[in-house]
Amino acid sequence: MASTSPELSTAAAAAAETDGTVQIRRLEVTDHGKGFVELLSQLSACPDLTASEFNACFADLAALGDDHVILVAEDLAAAAAAPERRILATGCLFVERKFLRGGGKVGHVEDVVVDAAARGRGLGLSVVRRLVEIAKEAGCYKVILDCTPELRAYYAKCGFVEKGVQMAIYF
Amino acid sequence: MASTSPELSTAAAAAAETDGTVQIRRLEVTDHGKGFVELLSQLSACPDLTASEFNACFADLAALGDDHVILVAEDLAAAAAAPERRILATGCLFVERKFLRGGGKVGHVEDVVVDAAARGRGLGLSVVRRLVEIAKEAGCYKVILDCTPELRAYYAKCGFVEKGVQMAIYF
Repeated sequence: MASTSPELSTAAAAAAETDGTVQIRRLEVTDHGKGFVELLSQLSACPDLTASEFNACFADLAALGDDHVILVAEDLAAAAAAPERRILATGCLFVERKFLRGGGKVGHVEDVVVDAAARGRGLGLSVVRRLVEIAKEAGCYKVILDCTPELRAYYAKCGFVEKGVQMAIYF
Repeated sequence: MASTSPELSTAAAAAAETDGTVQIRRLEVTDHGKGFVELLSQLSACPDLTASEFNACFADLAALGDDHVILVAEDLAAAAAAPERRILATGCLFVERKFLRGGGKVGHVEDVVVDAAARGRGLGLSVVRRLVEIAKEAGCYKVILDCTPELRAYYAKCGFVEKGVQMAIYF
């Protein structure tokens, strides 16, 4: 599921990263101390990870190179007293390789979430649009995501159209 | 999209691989000569691949190890005169790694298709059920797929329930 809790506003997304207060960039290992895991826990079950566990997971994903990109929106103006709440939004893209389409690539957007206190600023849309650009630059012939029906309009702002239904088995 | 053209019958799927005429196994590089690419072209645009192109794509995917599994159903009884039509069904599983759920894994089922002449024998369901088993054994906390609304009942036979909507951008 790409997202169950991004912001719902139409705030000018592109400006978010250029106003000097928020920077959108790839996840760094030091983001463990900036609230990245706590942010994910607003989306789905995400027990805290020790620094060691976080580093191991980070290394596993980093080994996938450009086939796995996690973006974060960092609040550069956050008070120094609250460094653990600097990551305001995140989203992920992974690239699937196929035999279809002559060895084609498909981008999957996953795990989009915006901090409850930072919604309405267009941060989620900025992250998603950047992920779509990365998918296009990587040569994907399409980019897809799954979401709840309530979020159709949200992702339509980024150019997504409804294509089918998502089915799941939980173990 | 997991599938747009599997069979729609409820034929006893589990028997398909044990009746001695069909074997479900992982894709092998020699399947280029057994109709694998032609089968995929029944699902979506899939231009023919030269042996060299196929081998390169196969190697890229094989490098992902157990994080990318392509199963095929091979007709062991196919006439020797028609070896190029031995692959009757296929389906793929790739495993996505996340920070969510303590470094959890999600299985994605993709590219399920059954040869038009072999539908109604439960081959697609056999392939999908095996992929679900592999996802579970790999430690995935869920397995998901996207399909057209018409295929909800088909995948329900494998235990899938509807969870959301699929959104897409085509470049």
